[in-house]
Amino acid sequence: MSDSKYQQLVAHLSEAHHLERAVAILQWDQQVKMPTGGAPQRAAQLAVLSRIAHEAFAQDKTARLLEDTEREIDGMDYDSDEASMVRVAKEEYRLASKLPAEFVAELTRATSLGRGAWIEARATNTFRTFEPQLQHIIDLTLQRAEYLGYDEHPYDALIDEYERGITTAQVTEIFGAHKPALVELIAAVQENSDTVDDSLVHQQFDIEKQKQFALDVIKAYGFDFERGRQDVSVHPFCTHFSRGDVRITTRFHDDFLNPALFGMMHEAGHGMYEQGSPERFEGTHLSGGTSLGVHESQSRLWENVVGRSKGFWIWALPKLQAYFPDELGSADVDSFYKAINKVGKSFIRVESDESTYNLHIMLRFELETDMVSGKVKVRDLPEEWNDRFESFFGITPPTDTLGVLQDIHWSMGLVGYFATYALGNLLSVQYYNKAVQQHPGIPDEIASGKFDTLRNWMQDNIYQHGRKFTSDELTRRVTGESIQSRDYMQYLQTKFGEIYGL
Amino acid sequence: MSDSKYQQLVAHLSEAHHLERAVAILQWDQQVKMPTGGAPQRAAQLAVLSRIAHEAFAQDKTARLLEDTEREIDGMDYDSDEASMVRVAKEEYRLASKLPAEFVAELTRATSLGRGAWIEARATNTFRTFEPQLQHIIDLTLQRAEYLGYDEHPYDALIDEYERGITTAQVTEIFGAHKPALVELIAAVQENSDTVDDSLVHQQFDIEKQKQFALDVIKAYGFDFERGRQDVSVHPFCTHFSRGDVRITTRFHDDFLNPALFGMMHEAGHGMYEQGSPERFEGTHLSGGTSLGVHESQSRLWENVVGRSKGFWIWALPKLQAYFPDELGSADVDSFYKAINKVGKSFIRVESDESTYNLHIMLRFELETDMVSGKVKVRDLPEEWNDRFESFFGITPPTDTLGVLQDIHWSMGLVGYFATYALGNLLSVQYYNKAVQQHPGIPDEIASGKFDTLRNWMQDNIYQHGRKFTSDELTRRVTGESIQSRDYMQYLQTKFGEIYGL
Repeated sequence: MSDSKYQQLVAHLSEAHHLERAVAILQWDQQVKMPTGGAPQRAAQLAVLSRIAHEAFAQDKTARLLEDTEREIDGMDYDSDEASMVRVAKEEYRLASKLPAEFVAELTRATSLGRGAWIEARATNTFRTFEPQLQHIIDLTLQRAEYLGYDEHPYDALIDEYERGITTAQVTEIFGAHKPALVELIAAVQENSDTVDDSLVHQQFDIEKQKQFALDVIKAYGFDFERGRQDVSVHPFCTHFSRGDVRITTRFHDDFLNPALFGMMHEAGHGMYEQGSPERFEGTHLSGGTSLGVHESQSRLWENVVGRSKGFWIWALPKLQAYFPDELGSADVDSFYKAINKVGKSFIRVESDESTYNLHIMLRFELETDMVSGKVKVRDLPEEWNDRFESFFGITPPTDTLGVLQDIHWSMGLVGYFATYALGNLLSVQYYNKAVQQHPGIPDEIASGKFDTLRNWMQDNIYQHGRKFTSDELTRRVTGESIQSRDYMQYLQTKFGEIYGL
Repeated sequence: MSDSKYQQLVAHLSEAHHLERAVAILQWDQQVKMPTGGAPQRAAQLAVLSRIAHEAFAQDKTARLLEDTEREIDGMDYDSDEASMVRVAKEEYRLASKLPAEFVAELTRATSLGRGAWIEARATNTFRTFEPQLQHIIDLTLQRAEYLGYDEHPYDALIDEYERGITTAQVTEIFGAHKPALVELIAAVQENSDTVDDSLVHQQFDIEKQKQFALDVIKAYGFDFERGRQDVSVHPFCTHFSRGDVRITTRFHDDFLNPALFGMMHEAGHGMYEQGSPERFEGTHLSGGTSLGVHESQSRLWENVVGRSKGFWIWALPKLQAYFPDELGSADVDSFYKAINKVGKSFIRVESDESTYNLHIMLRFELETDMVSGKVKVRDLPEEWNDRFESFFGITPPTDTLGVLQDIHWSMGLVGYFATYALGNLLSVQYYNKAVQQHPGIPDEIASGKFDTLRNWMQDNIYQHGRKFTSDELTRRVTGESIQSRDYMQYLQTKFGEIYGL
């Protein structure tokens, strides 16, 4: 018997999928293992491979197989693997077929070079050396929005790639409701800022011990090292080449405990989502996490909602003290919990606390939408950044390295991406609240180092669906409503109200 | 002005080249970094990517561009980049286009099954479980020879893939001249075998210190770590993704100094050849090393001719003693030099010393040619192996695992490959002698840790040509004659004559 159209479609799609994963392998290697001398040829290799991966998917044969399969499976349930595969692949095909192969190759080349220029500019605090590359990337990004198409705002086309179905107007509305309460909370916290001392986490901490402890934690969370690994890189990230090969990276500071520790928890949250993708989806468009926002909900859940909770440290502090008896031997849970949650006016997004984090995102969201609509020029970015930072936080970054140059994203052409971090924060608490509503014992379990009820809930409610549903579909299924900032704001108010005695 | 045909050809060829390098990256990662859970999907990724890399080269467009370019550059010098590019690419195209896609797929299937069967057979010492797979692989290998074509012997077609232009008759003649003298030398050495004690290198050696010392050595040789790296793997190898990204791997034993130390020198020899490939050849068929034999000449040069010389250890032993004062502090250069050069009757090729190594190769060469011409049947291989081993070495392997099952090559379809190891040994001394003839100070420089005269000579005479010339063309240019065993035999007789007091 000949293969069904659906089987043919899956076999066809898997080729493009394998090539995309090959691209991811070259990129991981580029950031984690490649000697500096490999850069120019790696850029060329990535350009060719990305183009071929794109062509393997965005070809007429894909459209034909999608149409044929759609007819073949007509009437199948919306939730079925078959209907979902066609639905998801069709939407991706719609977008992919709009980008000419040469354009994709050019963007890949530009971002490969852009990343190098950004690394140098950040290291030397010279925005001007990065500006031409960034200008080229932003020009290509505007071109990309035109290719993809949009109804209202060119930025809609960009953000839609990371959070399918969401619009600039919706994000603006969510942030509009979120921002005043956030600013109010931060102001109140600032008034009492002296009540929290975080010198505990600012000591010399042996990096090998930091690493061992963080590995202990993410193993307890459930990150599977037979299907994953952890390495060091300048900018921490998580990538996957299959559900059996999920990789996270970490950046260590020898005088500050938080970045590596909470960074490892964060990336492990991403990683467990990928490792939890169903085996039957392997090599297809349904494998992996559904959107960046939902992905970030998983990383922020394990980093913050769990990892920065007091309950977690009732279990974890004695273990950390065993690694650092001299530095932390006399610390009590309450002081340590406050120290890791100190609200600071950090210049750096990735080092900021939970309460100010979303404000960092809003700054980027506003700058991006203004760049895309032409209100802000690339050459004016450092000034615009600093002015707005001052108005948001009341302080001005002393250098561009601590300002506009801090994030890698734009150098990689990732415009429209930042907002998903804030959306992920909101979702992390929406999902957690639902899990606790169904399993009220979760907080107590966390305090005794048991994480399987929570992780299994994520497996059953989030991971197991792979990419079948959009972020909004999934969130409504799981929580009964769409994304909102109410739960997250309440969570922040309760937590920081208690810590700062508001 | 539109691109010349030559420019179009180079651009076209570079795509296939970049995809082949991407395959190499996935394979390096598979062997060096991949968690075990990644295996199934990595196999699928490699299958797709390899096929696409092959198709990118073996397509009609390549033939057309080659023909057009050939007309365009008619009359250009044989040595010119243009004429060489067309000559080399045309020959590779001729071979690549002769193998039907279904045949390549069948061979890939057979060897992936064969490899599994070999691993099991070797582990359980049961040749019979591997025999059906090996029979199938040998049948396909004969078929491969027919597809590729040959004038005299089907084995010509096989060896030509690894050492372009050489014939079975030539190798038979070279080995025929080499073997009697080798057997005589080994017999003489055996009579005096008690005079050399190698217990010095069989002690407990801290692996981290082994690594540091070996890295010191290859840095002194000239391996460039800004354009390369070193990792650990089960089977040591060298691979390259560009001249700016050359990677070597090492296997460490904590109770035996030789494998990691000389293994690192060996792979660094391969690596420096790749790092020395001219920048203007990057991404083209002219980049890298020209044949397996010439490649092996470079690895064996730095491993043996330099690394196992007495002069080298005059410089290196004090440095090694600084790492291992307890183990080697009282060793003198003479004893250490003898210990690392002890001749043993090893059953295992990869553990054999310089004097017996080529005899191991000759055994395989004779068996391979006899299999290909039908004189030896696959089912009789274990007996044939043991009988011939007895006649070569005077001892009989007690198990097939220590005999016919020891090497992975046949299970991977690599028939015709072994000979290049022995050819590399011969070439290493031919090239070294020529370098010393032109720069008589080289041996003294080695004894004082200076390697740049020798390395620069290799750069100017070998590396700089990339793949322009065949092994024979290159050897005649550089040394004035073809490959011969006279120099190597003389080198062995002098060296082991002195060590064993013959």
